Amino acid sequence: MSLTVVGSIAYDAVRTPFGARERMLGGAATHFSLAASFFDEVRPVGPVGDDFDEESWRILRTRGTVTDDVEHVAGGKTFFWKGVYSDNLNQRDTLVTDLNVFENFAPKLSQASQDADVLFLANIQPDLQLAVREQCTKARFVAMDSMNLWIDIANASLRKVIGTVDCLILNDEELEQLTEKPTLVRAAREVLTWGPKAVVAKLGKYGAALFTADDFFALPAYPLAEVIDPTGAGDTFAGGFVGYVAAHPEEPIGHELLSGAMAYGTALASYNVEEFGTERVERLTADEVHARVADLSRMTAFTAAPAPLRA
Amino acid sequence: MSLTVVGSIAYDAVRTPFGARERMLGGAATHFSLAASFFDEVRPVGPVGDDFDEESWRILRTRGTVTDDVEHVAGGKTFFWKGVYSDNLNQRDTLVTDLNVFENFAPKLSQASQDADVLFLANIQPDLQLAVREQCTKARFVAMDSMNLWIDIANASLRKVIGTVDCLILNDEELEQLTEKPTLVRAAREVLTWGPKAVVAKLGKYGAALFTADDFFALPAYPLAEVIDPTGAGDTFAGGFVGYVAAHPEEPIGHELLSGAMAYGTALASYNVEEFGTERVERLTADEVHARVADLSRMTAFTAAPAPLRA
Repeated sequence: MSLTVVGSIAYDAVRTPFGARERMLGGAATHFSLAASFFDEVRPVGPVGDDFDEESWRILRTRGTVTDDVEHVAGGKTFFWKGVYSDNLNQRDTLVTDLNVFENFAPKLSQASQDADVLFLANIQPDLQLAVREQCTKARFVAMDSMNLWIDIANASLRKVIGTVDCLILNDEELEQLTEKPTLVRAAREVLTWGPKAVVAKLGKYGAALFTADDFFALPAYPLAEVIDPTGAGDTFAGGFVGYVAAHPEEPIGHELLSGAMAYGTALASYNVEEFGTERVERLTADEVHARVADLSRMTAFTAAPAPLRA
Repeated sequence: MSLTVVGSIAYDAVRTPFGARERMLGGAATHFSLAASFFDEVRPVGPVGDDFDEESWRILRTRGTVTDDVEHVAGGKTFFWKGVYSDNLNQRDTLVTDLNVFENFAPKLSQASQDADVLFLANIQPDLQLAVREQCTKARFVAMDSMNLWIDIANASLRKVIGTVDCLILNDEELEQLTEKPTLVRAAREVLTWGPKAVVAKLGKYGAALFTADDFFALPAYPLAEVIDPTGAGDTFAGGFVGYVAAHPEEPIGHELLSGAMAYGTALASYNVEEFGTERVERLTADEVHARVADLSRMTAFTAAPAPLRA
């Protein structure tokens, strides 16, 4: 088995109320790989420039991730993003986006990456997502992310690629914007008519919700006293979620499997935001992941002694 | 046993994307009583005017609620509120607030109301809450609500009354504002040092979270395809939550009891928003309440088959 992810590999500059980093490894494919590497052999696909250093290669290869399809563009510079978070972390302003080698990125997948059992299309231009999707003919589970930019400027392409995947993972506001529905439930039901068998709504600090044909599941975010850097939380969640599916090749892809996947995604995302960039997930242990999944189970379980209600 | 609630009884005019009502029964004590009446004999305390009609008295007395301490102020008019919701219901603008008989309200509790086993202080001026709190010396559980207005203009009074209750129920943003903490976890922990043994954060469409001394519990909101009118959802939640505690006098007030209370509060609030004002909860049945609690249990349960994580 293997798990292919296509998406950005970047250097990020981030300022939050708890500190700042001028240049740290980031990007959707990076955060996804760090999380998913707990579950399967991961193959990230994305471009980097001459400035991509040894330390970054080392981090990317954490837990055996295979970087054969990380394309070094000679003479180019790695994608760079700079952003700042508001005091309560509710708002993020982008200060700089230098696409650099990402500007002319055309994904090239080796045979091994094309043969992946599971595929994740991180947030990139939807036509590129579709091109990758069509190369991975053997994937038994394909999930994708996107963003409001593509809803605005590449809507038809976005809808086309959504029609080819098993699971759409998107923020709740973006789902409502995409479908022009006033509630998340109606938005998710609409997407389920387009092809996907599952929709995951990322709710930020409120957790995540899963919609399948006839069921619903939701988990709160893991409660944290301090959130140091939210960057990459969504991609780390996706890495845990999709990785969990990849690690259970014998189980049918339905509500039960995906509920467990939600728990692992949530646990991993909670570690990601505890430190800057990849710092925490890089040195994370399997025991720590299992421990937070067990916590989440306890924190959401209740026994409602049925009160004898009055008529 | 009995359950006393002090708070507003009002006529509301509401416009939402799904329709409008020019004059319907509302107010915190009303919504609370409609929900709590499933669990115990409820005694609302609050003023109404000459315009308070027979139909409103009838609704208020649903499921045996005792209105002896609803004070008819001769020559006065009932509290009136008019508001409008945005297209996605995320924002609410108040157009009119006519305090009327509420302006000079001084709660007068009969002996029966003072002897209540359980007390809820709905959102009113904190000095009034404190006066009521001090009259109810036998209450084994006291919960309260408040709002950003009192955090701004009556902060010391608000903190004083919080110090006398067992449970504070507040929106998450208000908890962060009240404590000046950047995360909900730190805000809740701060309040727990002021006296309350439990803090409930209302998260709107994202559900609710419970903080006790050393544990955490959270529930998503019940998933609804249509939300017709969110007015009173928080007070309906509180009615289910506090009512559930009132209905279990033998059980210790701890994490387990309060988790079950969260489920009943969440179920009741979900019905409240399905129609305007009190329309839905008024004719709600016990079976319908139990059914949604069972749904919530299923929608939050997961089995995470422990993946053999890679080192």
